[in-house]
Amino acid sequence: MGEQSLNITFPDGSQKEFPDGVTGYEVAESISKGLAREALSVTLDDEILGLSRPIHKDGTITINTWDSEDGKYTFWHSSAHVLAEAIQELYPDAKFGIGPPIEQGFYYDVDFGDTDFGQDDLEALEKKFIEMARKKSEFDRQKISKNDAIAFYQKKDNPYKLDLIEGLEDGTITFYTQGEFTDLCRGPHIPHTGKIKAVKLTSLAGAYWRGDENSEQLTRIYGISFPKQKMLEKHLHQVEEAKKRDHKKLGKQLGIYMMDSMVGQGLPVWLPNGTTIRRTLEEFLRDEQKKRGYQEVITPHIGNLELYRTSGHYPYYQDSQYNPIEVDDEGYLLKPMNCPHHHRIYSNELHSYRDLPVRLAEFGSVYRYEQSGELNGLSRVRGFTQDDAHIYCMHEQLKDEIKNCIDLTQLVFSTFNMPVDIRLSFRDDNEEKYGGKAEFWHRAEKEIKEVADEVNLDYTIARGEASFYGPKIDFIIRDAIGRKWQLGTVQVDYVMPERFDLTYVGSDNQKHRPVIIHRAPFGSMERFMSILIEHFAGDFPVWLAPIQVSIIPIADDHNEYAFKLAEKMKRQDIRVEVDHRSEQIGAKIRNAETSKVPYMLIVGDDEIEKETVSVRRHKEGDIGTFDFSEFISNLKTEIDNKELAKHTNQK
Amino acid sequence: MGEQSLNITFPDGSQKEFPDGVTGYEVAESISKGLAREALSVTLDDEILGLSRPIHKDGTITINTWDSEDGKYTFWHSSAHVLAEAIQELYPDAKFGIGPPIEQGFYYDVDFGDTDFGQDDLEALEKKFIEMARKKSEFDRQKISKNDAIAFYQKKDNPYKLDLIEGLEDGTITFYTQGEFTDLCRGPHIPHTGKIKAVKLTSLAGAYWRGDENSEQLTRIYGISFPKQKMLEKHLHQVEEAKKRDHKKLGKQLGIYMMDSMVGQGLPVWLPNGTTIRRTLEEFLRDEQKKRGYQEVITPHIGNLELYRTSGHYPYYQDSQYNPIEVDDEGYLLKPMNCPHHHRIYSNELHSYRDLPVRLAEFGSVYRYEQSGELNGLSRVRGFTQDDAHIYCMHEQLKDEIKNCIDLTQLVFSTFNMPVDIRLSFRDDNEEKYGGKAEFWHRAEKEIKEVADEVNLDYTIARGEASFYGPKIDFIIRDAIGRKWQLGTVQVDYVMPERFDLTYVGSDNQKHRPVIIHRAPFGSMERFMSILIEHFAGDFPVWLAPIQVSIIPIADDHNEYAFKLAEKMKRQDIRVEVDHRSEQIGAKIRNAETSKVPYMLIVGDDEIEKETVSVRRHKEGDIGTFDFSEFISNLKTEIDNKELAKHTNQK
Repeated sequence: MGEQSLNITFPDGSQKEFPDGVTGYEVAESISKGLAREALSVTLDDEILGLSRPIHKDGTITINTWDSEDGKYTFWHSSAHVLAEAIQELYPDAKFGIGPPIEQGFYYDVDFGDTDFGQDDLEALEKKFIEMARKKSEFDRQKISKNDAIAFYQKKDNPYKLDLIEGLEDGTITFYTQGEFTDLCRGPHIPHTGKIKAVKLTSLAGAYWRGDENSEQLTRIYGISFPKQKMLEKHLHQVEEAKKRDHKKLGKQLGIYMMDSMVGQGLPVWLPNGTTIRRTLEEFLRDEQKKRGYQEVITPHIGNLELYRTSGHYPYYQDSQYNPIEVDDEGYLLKPMNCPHHHRIYSNELHSYRDLPVRLAEFGSVYRYEQSGELNGLSRVRGFTQDDAHIYCMHEQLKDEIKNCIDLTQLVFSTFNMPVDIRLSFRDDNEEKYGGKAEFWHRAEKEIKEVADEVNLDYTIARGEASFYGPKIDFIIRDAIGRKWQLGTVQVDYVMPERFDLTYVGSDNQKHRPVIIHRAPFGSMERFMSILIEHFAGDFPVWLAPIQVSIIPIADDHNEYAFKLAEKMKRQDIRVEVDHRSEQIGAKIRNAETSKVPYMLIVGDDEIEKETVSVRRHKEGDIGTFDFSEFISNLKTEIDNKELAKHTNQK
Repeated sequence: MGEQSLNITFPDGSQKEFPDGVTGYEVAESISKGLAREALSVTLDDEILGLSRPIHKDGTITINTWDSEDGKYTFWHSSAHVLAEAIQELYPDAKFGIGPPIEQGFYYDVDFGDTDFGQDDLEALEKKFIEMARKKSEFDRQKISKNDAIAFYQKKDNPYKLDLIEGLEDGTITFYTQGEFTDLCRGPHIPHTGKIKAVKLTSLAGAYWRGDENSEQLTRIYGISFPKQKMLEKHLHQVEEAKKRDHKKLGKQLGIYMMDSMVGQGLPVWLPNGTTIRRTLEEFLRDEQKKRGYQEVITPHIGNLELYRTSGHYPYYQDSQYNPIEVDDEGYLLKPMNCPHHHRIYSNELHSYRDLPVRLAEFGSVYRYEQSGELNGLSRVRGFTQDDAHIYCMHEQLKDEIKNCIDLTQLVFSTFNMPVDIRLSFRDDNEEKYGGKAEFWHRAEKEIKEVADEVNLDYTIARGEASFYGPKIDFIIRDAIGRKWQLGTVQVDYVMPERFDLTYVGSDNQKHRPVIIHRAPFGSMERFMSILIEHFAGDFPVWLAPIQVSIIPIADDHNEYAFKLAEKMKRQDIRVEVDHRSEQIGAKIRNAETSKVPYMLIVGDDEIEKETVSVRRHKEGDIGTFDFSEFISNLKTEIDNKELAKHTNQK
């Protein structure tokens, strides 16, 4: 502090000197004018700062633009202030509670007093918001004494802010003012309100002050804002699309899974159609794993606490674990992860360097406690199955094994036409956060980067995102409507081999520690299923569809032929059903369309005579008449090649 | 009582009148002289009686011969007395503790005082045993007052029997005397010692009096006896064979499973080879189930206590369950069975009579508490996976569904060459033991019997062996060394549809209750695996073998060719390995033999030149040279047909 120059480190590891007191804006400008223009805030080590705040210490800096989490956080935080400003303009007596950014947008809790405020008032408020934003008001930061802060809000007769100030320490309190609106706020904010070009106030809800149902109920106004009008339009379109694709709705409609409070909260039950898809996915991965030298194992769903004491997961991660079960004088845990079980399999026999790598794979069901309010369909559950594997190898084999994992993961996602962004998550300078020897870390990060370059990955490096036990590669996929989901990871682990005392005998006849790779392309079968449903909007490619073909006899007379065809197809492992109900053909087709069956075969007198089938494709309609054997052969090819339907092949 | 005649019911339901005071022997003789000769005791309702005991009440009687559990029980109980008699002859100062029959034989706990008694003394004791048995001494039953009983054992200075007598009520005490030996005993016994023709005293152990380690330590002598010398020889041979086939030894040697106290007691971990076999078994059953219209589901491994309160399994069966897990304000149980989860799936949607039967199948892992002393390899575990299914059907469909289940179960066991005995387990007159309406029971038992006759089953009927909720069919298989194991059951259930309020809408537009069939051919994958290992002595048929082919290059030069062959085989889903170690060919063959790999392909210069392979069959040796493609095609046929190897095809 107070030194003449600062040493600022950038995310790529490069360093630069700046004069003490330099601002984030100036740092951004030193890289490029364009970046400075896009910048919304900076993150210095772990703290987000406004662009105009002078910097007085060395550290690692990230320039936050709209494309980063921290950038959006700042943007939406400022948007909440603009919302309050707009409310103050329209409802001068409104009293403000809190107004934070959230994962998707922001909200503000407002006490409108005796004034009615409803859904119909949102549009006018949106207009006022944009009017305020266009003023390009700067966010002005002032330090203020506790007494002055109290006086300010006493004058406004605002019990909420007074309640908040009460909990703050004198000397740490700041106000932010933009235009005519001043708020108690820790900051930081974007340079000025003009950055916000578009807003949508999405919904209203009641919210008790401090979540306490004995306190005043305020009106919570949710909104989302963007730096470009086009982005809002895209977002609204995406929301609309997402609603149509909602896996909870489609999951029920297509008989994929059910939730049942009598079974238990957050515990999905896979229904027959869901089970068919899951087994198909498992079989796909199992085949690929077999080709790559994995061995499958099956471990119990509970484990002695000793396993988790050894791994360090108990008692340290108790919050996300189910309570232990007492058995005689032992404690057992519903297993929160499969790793310790696999480590014990590894150490069940002696290993020579000649046996390595050992690659143990398991579709392993794990149970983790989540608060009931956080549970959400198949996306957030308490019980799920990981497509888990642990590779035990010599350090010399690490690069090849990582390549093998990347290759498998990429194959998996390309099969579903999901583009992948890759992040190399390395450690930062905060060495206490990490276990294992520094030399191994250094080597592993270097090797991961080398591998990524060798196989021409397009990646970003994220320092500080490594896991406790080693660096990792994260795969972030984009679904058909452009949403990003973090799936498969490949993690390198130096810590567990120590903790579980894993060894192999090297060519030098000495004991050595193997290194472990943890990897799971799908991550969780449940969560992946939810993404898959939404990605395909339930229109699964034929190889995944629970029912691949629905045979629709035109009249009862044609049922026999239909069943004969179905029998032939079943013998070729085609999932087929015959709709032999005495219904109109139109109703049968509609039914198959609703069930999203890829192919419908209409059979009547003509087809029986010529041994043909009239084929309809889901969403496409009639695609012509085929020889039955020709149809089968085309279909088998489509299934074997895991082809994607044209209409699901968007983006 | 005291009436002039008794109404005696036989197991087949027929009835006969006998004079009051008739003996079991006389009842047996009324059926046939031969039966009377074979009879060892009778079971009247739930009580086993000696053949000479006069009967004074109506009841259902079973004549117990050596072939029945109760018969063996009586035989071995009497054998314990003969053992004591022999000991008394050789060691007059020995004091006796308790001497009960057990599952396989009997034991007696003896205090030899200062006299040494060891392994070497067993042979002489066996001789004396047979000498005593040949006397054909009858077992004479005397009622004795408590005082007289105490006086008797005070005179013998036997603190153990005195301790036992203390806990008995005066008026209920009986002594049994054969030859010179008298014992405190409730009976019953076989007619005379001469029925025992062969004995083997198998082992010695220390045993604390009443299992209390602060009490005196006695010597426990274990033995087993038979009505024929040949039976003993067969038994000893079987014990020898069983030892060689022990699944715990082979399970380890062949890498099938492991047990690990750090993972937890009674929780088997399936190693790669075991997992391969299990997956193959599952796939086999899954295919067969698909053909029969089953739908697979996947349910979580825990369930809300509400499920088990509804089914009645909680809190009534708590002893065999793990303790509940507290989650927020709910209780969860590691699921002890899959049924309630499936019932909830059934009631997740409305069912019309047109949708029935609904057949839900799951390889469902369940957890049941067993005392740690009872745990035994894969035979008795705390966590296991059932090949479970529940069929929900209309009563009119019951017969067809039962046929379907019998057919599947028989197919399964015939595939492994396991002959099956079938037992129809019906209810007895003790109506309180059973749930559900009497008319349904009557109808279901009638229909089960009709089905059994229609498909020409060779069955026995066991009254009183039904489960609480309905009659069942039990499948008892015989393994390659003649041991019997109860596997697959088919159970009819009228109770759970009521408890879970399961309904379907009939053609009359009214709600009706479906009936449920519970069935599981393998029963438990773990227990079945243990039986399979012992049945095949680890020499699995090729379709099950974890490694089907081991390619053995004669020298390093031939490795490349070997790998090329392996690649070709893998593409045809053949499980193959190449033994490319720089070892002598003899060592490689020995290694493959130890691992019980069915086929070894020896490849050298000759084979490469002619594109052939020299084939060795496990346990058979060289079977000749084949064109590679011819070998593959034969092998594929053997696998697809699930052929049994000739040498495992015994019995």
